[in-house]
Amino acid sequence: MPTAHPPIEVPNRLLHGPGPSPVAPSVLAALAKPCIGHMDPEFMRVMNEVREMLQAVFETNNEMTLACSGTGSAGAEMLVDNLVEPGDTCLVGVNGVFGGRLVEKCRRAGGKVETVTAAWGDAIDEDMFITKIEELKPQLAVLVHAETSTGVHQPLDRVADAAHRHGGLFMVDCVTSLGGLPVKIDQRHIDAAYSGTQKCLSCPPGLAPVTLSERAMHKVQNRLTPVNSWYLDLTLVGNYWSGSRAYHHTAPVNMNYALHEALRLILEEGLEPRFERHQRVHTHLSEQLAARGFEYASDPDNSLPMLNLVTIPKSVNDEAAVRRALLDEHGIEIGGGLGDLAGKCWRIGLMGHGAREESVDAIVKALDEVA
Amino acid sequence: MPTAHPPIEVPNRLLHGPGPSPVAPSVLAALAKPCIGHMDPEFMRVMNEVREMLQAVFETNNEMTLACSGTGSAGAEMLVDNLVEPGDTCLVGVNGVFGGRLVEKCRRAGGKVETVTAAWGDAIDEDMFITKIEELKPQLAVLVHAETSTGVHQPLDRVADAAHRHGGLFMVDCVTSLGGLPVKIDQRHIDAAYSGTQKCLSCPPGLAPVTLSERAMHKVQNRLTPVNSWYLDLTLVGNYWSGSRAYHHTAPVNMNYALHEALRLILEEGLEPRFERHQRVHTHLSEQLAARGFEYASDPDNSLPMLNLVTIPKSVNDEAAVRRALLDEHGIEIGGGLGDLAGKCWRIGLMGHGAREESVDAIVKALDEVA
Repeated sequence: MPTAHPPIEVPNRLLHGPGPSPVAPSVLAALAKPCIGHMDPEFMRVMNEVREMLQAVFETNNEMTLACSGTGSAGAEMLVDNLVEPGDTCLVGVNGVFGGRLVEKCRRAGGKVETVTAAWGDAIDEDMFITKIEELKPQLAVLVHAETSTGVHQPLDRVADAAHRHGGLFMVDCVTSLGGLPVKIDQRHIDAAYSGTQKCLSCPPGLAPVTLSERAMHKVQNRLTPVNSWYLDLTLVGNYWSGSRAYHHTAPVNMNYALHEALRLILEEGLEPRFERHQRVHTHLSEQLAARGFEYASDPDNSLPMLNLVTIPKSVNDEAAVRRALLDEHGIEIGGGLGDLAGKCWRIGLMGHGAREESVDAIVKALDEVA
Repeated sequence: MPTAHPPIEVPNRLLHGPGPSPVAPSVLAALAKPCIGHMDPEFMRVMNEVREMLQAVFETNNEMTLACSGTGSAGAEMLVDNLVEPGDTCLVGVNGVFGGRLVEKCRRAGGKVETVTAAWGDAIDEDMFITKIEELKPQLAVLVHAETSTGVHQPLDRVADAAHRHGGLFMVDCVTSLGGLPVKIDQRHIDAAYSGTQKCLSCPPGLAPVTLSERAMHKVQNRLTPVNSWYLDLTLVGNYWSGSRAYHHTAPVNMNYALHEALRLILEEGLEPRFERHQRVHTHLSEQLAARGFEYASDPDNSLPMLNLVTIPKSVNDEAAVRRALLDEHGIEIGGGLGDLAGKCWRIGLMGHGAREESVDAIVKALDEVA
């Protein structure tokens, strides 16, 4: 019989990788409030307020807005599993890891998947994507708003209308954009979007905000086949979050406290000032990096403020050793490249609570010492 | 644009429903430690220690033992989705809500489901279940060890060998039993089991401990069809928890801190003393209830110590009002009946950190006042 390990001691880190991002002290304090029942009227009030504040941050009036009880990947799967029926045509834009994962998820849901691709570091050509929609008339068109693997910001203002013209739906991955860039769900007529708590919302990982339009819910409610997943079945989960309040699963109570506080901080700051702060701090980083000869690997016209894809200088022989030295000697986490970009790029995150000038100064000072 | 809600104020509750259960202060403190990266070597150490301590609590040497990033229902779905292939025969014991849900999950995974049933409040007859296994030779046999909806403790010592004789697997729902009753995974030759953090582990809800034997993993690794779920695909999740450490999803970092501390407390207390404490406190409650004329609605030979199913006295006209008065006036949560037992029974939980004599005294004193 193994004995108990000693209590954990967690180092303080400056989190500037692709997420999780730094968490404000009041969010950690909310996380540690006493656990209460998932059917307690006081917890129902917390859920209602989380929904209202998620609506504000998503910029939507969608009734079906909630925090899925899993991480961002669970949010993606919840939407795909509920929106895709076997045989549906799905058109997915792929220019990085997360577009590729959406292809796989749509396939597992029974979808017939077609793709529009772009080089890693480039955005998908919006016109090309729309042309493909007109040609294929997919039941579901999917784009990644902020590709966490490449730092690319995807233009998508005109996609929803193209998808709607033949009765299709438009879904967007907002994992890294929500809370750091305008997502404007209603203004853009986006039918379904998901995010994660650990990026620009600056809450620990564990929940996935999702929102669906009435058009999307019409599709869900008129499915001919059951949803693959019982845990992520939106009709059941939605009844717990509003309406009948029928018990479905035990919500992660304390994680919802933390999300409540994280959303509160965002709305107190205001969305526009928050987006401007992300842009300003990104500009500061890019200037500091340029002064040191670093180059961005993402298209400068479509670079994300909160996730900076930087080419590793030729002078660096062992990029993993540099990241390890940043972590061990300076307590700073930055991300390595994912997939095709492993060993070629670093990913520097400036997300939510962590998007601050002084953080940029700490990162570049540490890079000066170890790179 | 809605404004921010005020910070939440959470009341202190004595949690004596069907879960979540009371959480120790050191577990809440662990939850609020600084968030670090999900690929940070220090977090990998936390994961390793969580796995080792889960193995100890499950009483297993199974390498594939981890905390699934969702609540107990996600753990159930992870095991069903990975173990059931379309067309597989699944034999499920159904004597309450959670057996019924397993039927639905096996169906959605493509299984051909057969059941052995018992009245709500009774255990499944083990001999009858084994006879049915011998008749149907199911690929998967499933029982609920502790039916949270009925307070029934399921005997299952001889089931695994019956399932194995024709090459089948035996899976057990340990959501409410783990940490409060011996589950003895290896000694009983159980192939797959799942639990939730918010019952006898006394951690907030949000993670689902799972364990799978080599025999079960052989089935997973030799599937002919992909797993429905990408999020819960054990081959991918397992690579992140051990082996290659390949990134799959962002683990709920802080929830794993809390689980680490909750498991530590269990192993410091010791499994046997903990099981004895649950039994002792249950006996105290049952004596107190008997003295007041309350009757148990579950079979006395198979009643769970941690979940007490009590028939609502005829003198009570509005049972929901009584539960509400317990909550509002005494800060005590007990559970109503689920499914067929709604309005007929109460469920009084004495789980983990909450299984204490003084809690029983507080519950019966409050019941004396309001019922």
